Amino acid sequence: MAGGLADYADLDLDRSVRRGYPEAVFCAGKTPAQVRGIAAAVRTRPDVVTLFTRAGADHAAAIRAELPDARHDTDAALLAWPPSPPPPTGGLVVVAAAGTSDLPVAREAELTARYLGRPTELVVDVGVAGLHRILARLDLLRRARAVVVAAGMDGALPSVVAGLITAPVVALPTSVGYGAAFGGLAPLLAMLNACAPGVAVVNIDNGYGAGHLAAQIAADPAR
Amino acid sequence: MAGGLADYADLDLDRSVRRGYPEAVFCAGKTPAQVRGIAAAVRTRPDVVTLFTRAGADHAAAIRAELPDARHDTDAALLAWPPSPPPPTGGLVVVAAAGTSDLPVAREAELTARYLGRPTELVVDVGVAGLHRILARLDLLRRARAVVVAAGMDGALPSVVAGLITAPVVALPTSVGYGAAFGGLAPLLAMLNACAPGVAVVNIDNGYGAGHLAAQIAADPAR
Amino acid sequence: MAGGLADYADLDLDRSVRRGYPEAVFCAGKTPAQVRGIAAAVRTRPDVVTLFTRAGADHAAAIRAELPDARHDTDAALLAWPPSPPPPTGGLVVVAAAGTSDLPVAREAELTARYLGRPTELVVDVGVAGLHRILARLDLLRRARAVVVAAGMDGALPSVVAGLITAPVVALPTSVGYGAAFGGLAPLLAMLNACAPGVAVVNIDNGYGAGHLAAQIAADPAR
Amino acid sequence: MAGGLADYADLDLDRSVRRGYPEAVFCAGKTPAQVRGIAAAVRTRPDVVTLFTRAGADHAAAIRAELPDARHDTDAALLAWPPSPPPPTGGLVVVAAAGTSDLPVAREAELTARYLGRPTELVVDVGVAGLHRILARLDLLRRARAVVVAAGMDGALPSVVAGLITAPVVALPTSVGYGAAFGGLAPLLAMLNACAPGVAVVNIDNGYGAGHLAAQIAADPAR
Amino acid sequence: MAGGLADYADLDLDRSVRRGYPEAVFCAGKTPAQVRGIAAAVRTRPDVVTLFTRAGADHAAAIRAELPDARHDTDAALLAWPPSPPPPTGGLVVVAAAGTSDLPVAREAELTARYLGRPTELVVDVGVAGLHRILARLDLLRRARAVVVAAGMDGALPSVVAGLITAPVVALPTSVGYGAAFGGLAPLLAMLNACAPGVAVVNIDNGYGAGHLAAQIAADPAR
Amino acid sequence: MAGGLADYADLDLDRSVRRGYPEAVFCAGKTPAQVRGIAAAVRTRPDVVTLFTRAGADHAAAIRAELPDARHDTDAALLAWPPSPPPPTGGLVVVAAAGTSDLPVAREAELTARYLGRPTELVVDVGVAGLHRILARLDLLRRARAVVVAAGMDGALPSVVAGLITAPVVALPTSVGYGAAFGGLAPLLAMLNACAPGVAVVNIDNGYGAGHLAAQIAADPAR
Amino acid sequence: MAGGLADYADLDLDRSVRRGYPEAVFCAGKTPAQVRGIAAAVRTRPDVVTLFTRAGADHAAAIRAELPDARHDTDAALLAWPPSPPPPTGGLVVVAAAGTSDLPVAREAELTARYLGRPTELVVDVGVAGLHRILARLDLLRRARAVVVAAGMDGALPSVVAGLITAPVVALPTSVGYGAAFGGLAPLLAMLNACAPGVAVVNIDNGYGAGHLAAQIAADPAR
Amino acid sequence: MAGGLADYADLDLDRSVRRGYPEAVFCAGKTPAQVRGIAAAVRTRPDVVTLFTRAGADHAAAIRAELPDARHDTDAALLAWPPSPPPPTGGLVVVAAAGTSDLPVAREAELTARYLGRPTELVVDVGVAGLHRILARLDLLRRARAVVVAAGMDGALPSVVAGLITAPVVALPTSVGYGAAFGGLAPLLAMLNACAPGVAVVNIDNGYGAGHLAAQIAADPAR
Repeated sequence: MAGGLADYADLDLDRSVRRGYPEAVFCAGKTPAQVRGIAAAVRTRPDVVTLFTRAGADHAAAIRAELPDARHDTDAALLAWPPSPPPPTGGLVVVAAAGTSDLPVAREAELTARYLGRPTELVVDVGVAGLHRILARLDLLRRARAVVVAAGMDGALPSVVAGLITAPVVALPTSVGYGAAFGGLAPLLAMLNACAPGVAVVNIDNGYGAGHLAAQIAADPAR
Repeated sequence: MAGGLADYADLDLDRSVRRGYPEAVFCAGKTPAQVRGIAAAVRTRPDVVTLFTRAGADHAAAIRAELPDARHDTDAALLAWPPSPPPPTGGLVVVAAAGTSDLPVAREAELTARYLGRPTELVVDVGVAGLHRILARLDLLRRARAVVVAAGMDGALPSVVAGLITAPVVALPTSVGYGAAFGGLAPLLAMLNACAPGVAVVNIDNGYGAGHLAAQIAADPAR
Repeated sequence: MAGGLADYADLDLDRSVRRGYPEAVFCAGKTPAQVRGIAAAVRTRPDVVTLFTRAGADHAAAIRAELPDARHDTDAALLAWPPSPPPPTGGLVVVAAAGTSDLPVAREAELTARYLGRPTELVVDVGVAGLHRILARLDLLRRARAVVVAAGMDGALPSVVAGLITAPVVALPTSVGYGAAFGGLAPLLAMLNACAPGVAVVNIDNGYGAGHLAAQIAADPAR
Repeated sequence: MAGGLADYADLDLDRSVRRGYPEAVFCAGKTPAQVRGIAAAVRTRPDVVTLFTRAGADHAAAIRAELPDARHDTDAALLAWPPSPPPPTGGLVVVAAAGTSDLPVAREAELTARYLGRPTELVVDVGVAGLHRILARLDLLRRARAVVVAAGMDGALPSVVAGLITAPVVALPTSVGYGAAFGGLAPLLAMLNACAPGVAVVNIDNGYGAGHLAAQIAADPAR
Repeated sequence: MAGGLADYADLDLDRSVRRGYPEAVFCAGKTPAQVRGIAAAVRTRPDVVTLFTRAGADHAAAIRAELPDARHDTDAALLAWPPSPPPPTGGLVVVAAAGTSDLPVAREAELTARYLGRPTELVVDVGVAGLHRILARLDLLRRARAVVVAAGMDGALPSVVAGLITAPVVALPTSVGYGAAFGGLAPLLAMLNACAPGVAVVNIDNGYGAGHLAAQIAADPAR
Repeated sequence: MAGGLADYADLDLDRSVRRGYPEAVFCAGKTPAQVRGIAAAVRTRPDVVTLFTRAGADHAAAIRAELPDARHDTDAALLAWPPSPPPPTGGLVVVAAAGTSDLPVAREAELTARYLGRPTELVVDVGVAGLHRILARLDLLRRARAVVVAAGMDGALPSVVAGLITAPVVALPTSVGYGAAFGGLAPLLAMLNACAPGVAVVNIDNGYGAGHLAAQIAADPAR
Repeated sequence: MAGGLADYADLDLDRSVRRGYPEAVFCAGKTPAQVRGIAAAVRTRPDVVTLFTRAGADHAAAIRAELPDARHDTDAALLAWPPSPPPPTGGLVVVAAAGTSDLPVAREAELTARYLGRPTELVVDVGVAGLHRILARLDLLRRARAVVVAAGMDGALPSVVAGLITAPVVALPTSVGYGAAFGGLAPLLAMLNACAPGVAVVNIDNGYGAGHLAAQIAADPAR
Repeated sequence: MAGGLADYADLDLDRSVRRGYPEAVFCAGKTPAQVRGIAAAVRTRPDVVTLFTRAGADHAAAIRAELPDARHDTDAALLAWPPSPPPPTGGLVVVAAAGTSDLPVAREAELTARYLGRPTELVVDVGVAGLHRILARLDLLRRARAVVVAAGMDGALPSVVAGLITAPVVALPTSVGYGAAFGGLAPLLAMLNACAPGVAVVNIDNGYGAGHLAAQIAADPAR
């Protein structure tokens, strides 16, 4: 696609001021050249944290060509610039992953919340098939102001967690599972039908959205 | 529909002998006259237990016209004749209902298992939103040779139960829930994707099928 | 179904203490007799607010037989007892309904949040087909600590609102619309795919769940 | 497949005369050899504009072997011959893309409308998450006789645009988005349920169809 | 629901001026009392045509209590006030119904287009199972500036019509058909996949939307 | 709907001559008045057999007001006029119903084939849960030139029958079954995926279509 | 998988005698080694025609290693052995493909019918967007005893053909099309809902099944 | 992902003691490095059988680096360590595969049941298109205490088997088939709707789950 940045993107670098949170650049579906163009524009605004999500290897190289010190978490397929998150404010965000295979999106959620300014903790492999695992983390979960629960398969963990704590649960369905998980549809529906109230559902594998929502919930009200 | 029994049904009263379990008459979709015709034929074989499932008021009246002493459980929409179940053999079948609204199908499952010859127990309102409720029944659940778990909404209970016991869990999705339960699709998919192994799924609201399967699993091997 | 309360429900009146919010009684799927039994048990605990949701006329009469002074909002199909909500604490919850047909579930959400202790406001008929309507309410929306947005059809309103404010948006899809709304599936999917972050989705027509979640988000952190 | 053109295609080069618009050759699903055979036949009719859509690199090479001066837009995966569009007649067609990732299909729509004889304009990155972006283009949108709106994810932009202008909106859902977009199903349903009237929906990622429809709508009535 | 009009609707009677077409009142989902309140407000603005769509008998009575001379078309479940459509301007809108069962929505489309100011014609029972029927109407179809094609079942008629004429086709799927029509899903998908370009799809059974879109397309450009 | 027959139907009484089979009148979705109008027109052509399908009680009364001697099969919801089928020609059509609940559509299929001129036989309650039942009819099945197999639930019978005979099987899915039958979707999909070749699938509950197709297949080739 | 033929297949070479048609070997999902083992067994029975369907390049090489003179049609991904079809008997089978992209499955259907013993003809690019194309083949279509119609996208062609001829139409949906074709779902549903009777539907892209069914329908009754 | 085992997995090697069966490691979705870390931990507990399922070549190499003598079945994509299954106890588990393409998941089921301690037998290519094949195995099937039936396409085999034996059938749908099998959805639905009782359904292609469930059912009750 010929032409400059204005031909394919209308950056909104003041959004951080206007809405309180930085906008993220969703790399999947953009060409590396487009992403690089955006990265170049971003460079002029070090006061705003920018997240590049769903960044493949080509996207990452393009970003690093403009922002060499950007932090790149390959598991989460996420880059952040400036590389250090802001000092944490607000309440704790805990991210719980039901299984090891849920880790990439859980990690994307955790990093997003951290770069949006919250203190975070990540716990893994706490699915309901072994209840003792999640019960052992109850103290940590109850210290959180928002808990992100990533789960594929039956998507049962958010219901269980929401029944145990007072804070809202952000339910993050993942596309992990056998055939009838239908790419995350099964846990998505389970989470929408959680038998415990207090469950906020986001899109399948949308770790960024889950982390952003949790950061908003856990923000100090004065904000 | 004019004509006699042969015009609409091919009864298989020897099935009890051949396959070991009585056939059930699924009343929904049959006219009361057809059901009455079947009931009349059944009367000649008091040695075989016959179950009439999904029986509306009209069906029940038609059956009772031929089998006045048939037992009628209105909650489960089920009639049985002869009215008394056989003496129990085999292992215990426990039926657990996540919520009060799941009771009708849970009851259908329990009665089916009992009329097929198993000892049964029913526990209610043990959904995962309050884990203490199901944990309080753990001793009973662990005594069972098969546990039927009826749940709508998120369908999370079978995963949790299967993670706590050694016996197989028969997962019975119900059509209870808000919009995105889609008539039981949500718990059905959750149960098919149960993160704990040992979960046997049956059709939505199919209490008869769940009870039958549990009775087979809990039968003594010598059978 | 013969027998007493223990045969069909395991009430959890201490839940208010344990988890911080009262449990609700989902009436749809329960018989009036069952609901009445629960209401009778509730009467012994005036210190706990109890909500009865999805209550038809028969359910309401049964509840009122035990709790004559219960407040009954027929639009929202909801009863509350004791009749007065607690004094409001925490941040403001604003409930916005895209169209007049979305009012019943929007009202259920508002009343739930109010009975869980939050100050609430309700705005109506602010769908995106006439952007001036929602823009005229921007000041109110920006004062909220959580905004519930109820919409059927295209489910576009939550994306627009989330792009305008800092607080989280609880997106509440309704089953309002022509054929291809598929009973609320269309707005549900739209909300899960909201192009603005900060959108927490709940089940179709689940006003209770939306109000509960909003009340949790808007609670004072000290809680 | 051995044999000549008649074995796999029945070209309709008089269609331009009969129906008023040239037929397009949908390359996906055809072998490069088949496409080349069609290109050779096309060469005999320079009076008719022919569009080759969804052309991969192999298809493009095959077409260029016969029509070396064909215009190839790689973003839109489209080739046109003769290379220059006809002089514009009729009203303006504006194509608006919600996000950068929607650009390829938006571009396919714009080029189609232009090669069918309309004046066109393209605006990008005007999704509803930042309303100011689309509102800033209102003057341009209101000058159009038809507006194509390409959007993935929540598909909310067509509803908003249709509420702001008098001309018809051609809603073009794209397959851009996270899991629960289900390959474009989410924006497709949202657009079919647009709360503003005046929205004409076409198939997912069908930029050609959208551009063709817009060109017909914006044609001068005398045609 | 207690209170006045502002509690449930934000009427937009200037919309006719601002956007060029009157807003319609979608009655399904509103109470008769709400609809009556809207009708009372409408009475003050006889310069604006108002359409009440999907009006049941109760809605119609409520409307007539305020607007006794409103025109009521029971087949289309539509009321219009003032009762006479404006003098026709713009191009002809032809509405074609594939089968007799498609008539109610076809009629809703025709009346909508007429009350929005277009000359209209209606042809019936011209499904593709007997091609001679639609071919016999070819002259009329070719005189139209927009053709609405209502069809259930296979939804094949819009493809055929679009291949025969130059004007755009508004495809209106109906919920008519056997089981696998799935409430209109089958014709909806067929229309979205029409093999002829120039097909604009609207929602299932949405006669109002189809008529509105056709009226916009057939408007004189000067508008 | 005011007006005469031409306002809602374009009868095609010469279709019997042109295409070889009479057209049927699908009553569902038509008003009794419309159906009566069609019946009146039919009366002038006793040389053509007319079938009225999916006729409710109101439709039947309207038809009989014009065609008092029409044959009415209430099980199949079908009326035929003239009342006697033509003398049978061509090969035998056997209709097999898996269960008693499948009888209404099976009967519709049988009557349709008979009124289209084929000799027919009907066998019932031959589902695969008791293989001996269908195996006992093997001689009859092998005498047929076309076999219609009606089944709900798992839709397994057509696969089994097609594996046993040489003639084509017309698979007729019915909407009989528990929740996850999804109104006939389960047997429909099973039949489309029949592991034995020679299975022709028609729409859910479409007994008319199945009988018509079987009559065409079993017609003598000279026709 | 180690071991011989009995470990993975139970060949049924007498099926040709018993059921009248040879069994086909569906290669997709089998390893080349398995297919080669089957080919070796087939070599002993030259009196039976064997078809290998969905054969990739690896499968074809494995088959040819055992049956060097097998006929391989790469378009249809089909191999036949012995290489020559039997002398044709029975009525004509015409295969019509709506578009060029439908050719591979149309060709698979034609070859299957020919190897099962029928005379065949193939016509291409006769979709309903240009009705003159199919109307020009009417004489040929009316000479057929069975017509296979392959179509993707809107799946409209079978309805149109069935309305024009007396013989049964075998409708063969293909996975050709844009997004909302959903891999062939759209034409599949359209064909199941064909508004003309006489349409027999088979699975998506199942050219083998369509050709087999057509061959059975077009067989001489004496068979 | 940096860090040790605790960062991505919470192994539960006492599960074998607590629940009676070893936990399996689902490799798909885990990195080879993660799987290797788990394998290293497993090495310390040779008293517990560990299964690694869905192991690709990379996973297998990682496992073998730590557990060189692990048994690797490439067809089933499964590794077991220690390499020898325990001595068989309990009743016989028979695994029946409808077609050759169902073998990989059938083999996964058989190996799982064997490593969980049951005697097993595997029979192949016994689909219902040739009933004689399954009937020939009836003696073996009737000796089993649990039968796993793997089938794709129409999923009809479990219904047929369940009608012939007394033991429970574990129905294992596979993703084998043409388009409208929709990745295993068709056989899954068919199995959930099995017309014979006694069918326990597991997830699509979930051979591990089927084998585990069968092993539990066939365990000696004393367990």
